[in-house]
Amino acid sequence: MKLVYTGKTKDVFSLEDGNYLLKFKDNCTGADGVFDPGMNTVGPTIEGAGRAGLRLTEYFMKILNEKGVPTHFISADIENVTMTVKPAKTFGKGLEVICRFRAVGSFYRRYGDYITEAAVLPAFVETTFKDDAREDPPVTKDALEILGIMSPEDYESLKVLTQKIAGIMKEELAKKNIELYDIKFEFGKIGDQVVLIDEISGGNMRAYRNGEYLLPLDLTSKVLDE
Amino acid sequence: MKLVYTGKTKDVFSLEDGNYLLKFKDNCTGADGVFDPGMNTVGPTIEGAGRAGLRLTEYFMKILNEKGVPTHFISADIENVTMTVKPAKTFGKGLEVICRFRAVGSFYRRYGDYITEAAVLPAFVETTFKDDAREDPPVTKDALEILGIMSPEDYESLKVLTQKIAGIMKEELAKKNIELYDIKFEFGKIGDQVVLIDEISGGNMRAYRNGEYLLPLDLTSKVLDE
Repeated sequence: MKLVYTGKTKDVFSLEDGNYLLKFKDNCTGADGVFDPGMNTVGPTIEGAGRAGLRLTEYFMKILNEKGVPTHFISADIENVTMTVKPAKTFGKGLEVICRFRAVGSFYRRYGDYITEAAVLPAFVETTFKDDAREDPPVTKDALEILGIMSPEDYESLKVLTQKIAGIMKEELAKKNIELYDIKFEFGKIGDQVVLIDEISGGNMRAYRNGEYLLPLDLTSKVLDE
Repeated sequence: MKLVYTGKTKDVFSLEDGNYLLKFKDNCTGADGVFDPGMNTVGPTIEGAGRAGLRLTEYFMKILNEKGVPTHFISADIENVTMTVKPAKTFGKGLEVICRFRAVGSFYRRYGDYITEAAVLPAFVETTFKDDAREDPPVTKDALEILGIMSPEDYESLKVLTQKIAGIMKEELAKKNIELYDIKFEFGKIGDQVVLIDEISGGNMRAYRNGEYLLPLDLTSKVLDE
């Protein structure tokens, strides 16, 4: 087992069988010590955040796999806070795909002139590059084509897949009386197949119960322990 | 004649016949006193910049009208530095449409991880809202639909029209041994027809001769006086 990448919220190790091991950390994204799922900088360190994120990721990855959504997930080791995954090739140096059901976060900050805060959105999809130095720049379907990252046909498939997965997530959370406002995914390719990679946790979504935002640890406990 | 809007680079007056009069000012966009066509803040004031912008606008508007491109242009009064235009309805509070032939400016700043500076682009089109407070946020075709600004069909028409106009501009400038790197347009609607509005000047484009960037006044003199 060899450390190949040190991330903000996870370390990545390569395994001898060709798979990878993700070690979840207690670092959360945010700024000035305040958690914010929309940020790309390291914010507070919250004890148990890594394990809570892994537990939720395992829960949702299993549901998605059952529903036929291809993912990189193989297994989770909750005690050691690690997840074993298949090797996947990212789009460029990493592409984030956001699906929005409510106008909050950066969407509302950008378009507040044209929409009221928290207005309902019809599973709106947008993409940004993972690029800390450039503050995760937004990138359009046309730009992804020109930059040689993704064909327009692949973009449309990815958009449909994103809306399908986000729809499943929204439905699953609704069963627990939780409303999904927005969620951020990362995809990769295994061979020719586009698969969901990375984690699915409170760090990647905004979820609310009775109008109140749920912090990552609360989300995990409300989904898994209630 | 009544002042209805005070802009950064132009004042707008309503005329009794229903048309509008645009008074070009010597203010240029930029920051810290340095001109930058990609900025949306007021930069330096350059004597003669208003008249130079108007002269170039008149020149190009006439060429575009001759080639069948619908615009809001009626006439220009170079002495008084004013342009008379038809009333047009903007998209939202104003939408800027950028067409890029080279990867410079904000495009390169955003995507420098994936493209070399000044790489050739195939008339790439992107859109941003005019919104100073929000730093002219980029907006996608899908977002324009969701915000009720423009249908996907209208977006595709606008994209094709933008590429056509930018192509004409590129060709006209090439006749003067000038290369167009990128250009920013604004469109509006007169009835059901999408028309080109605002100005076409050095303040809205990056143009180079022999690899050297041409400042707005230089551009006007090289196009009109050589």
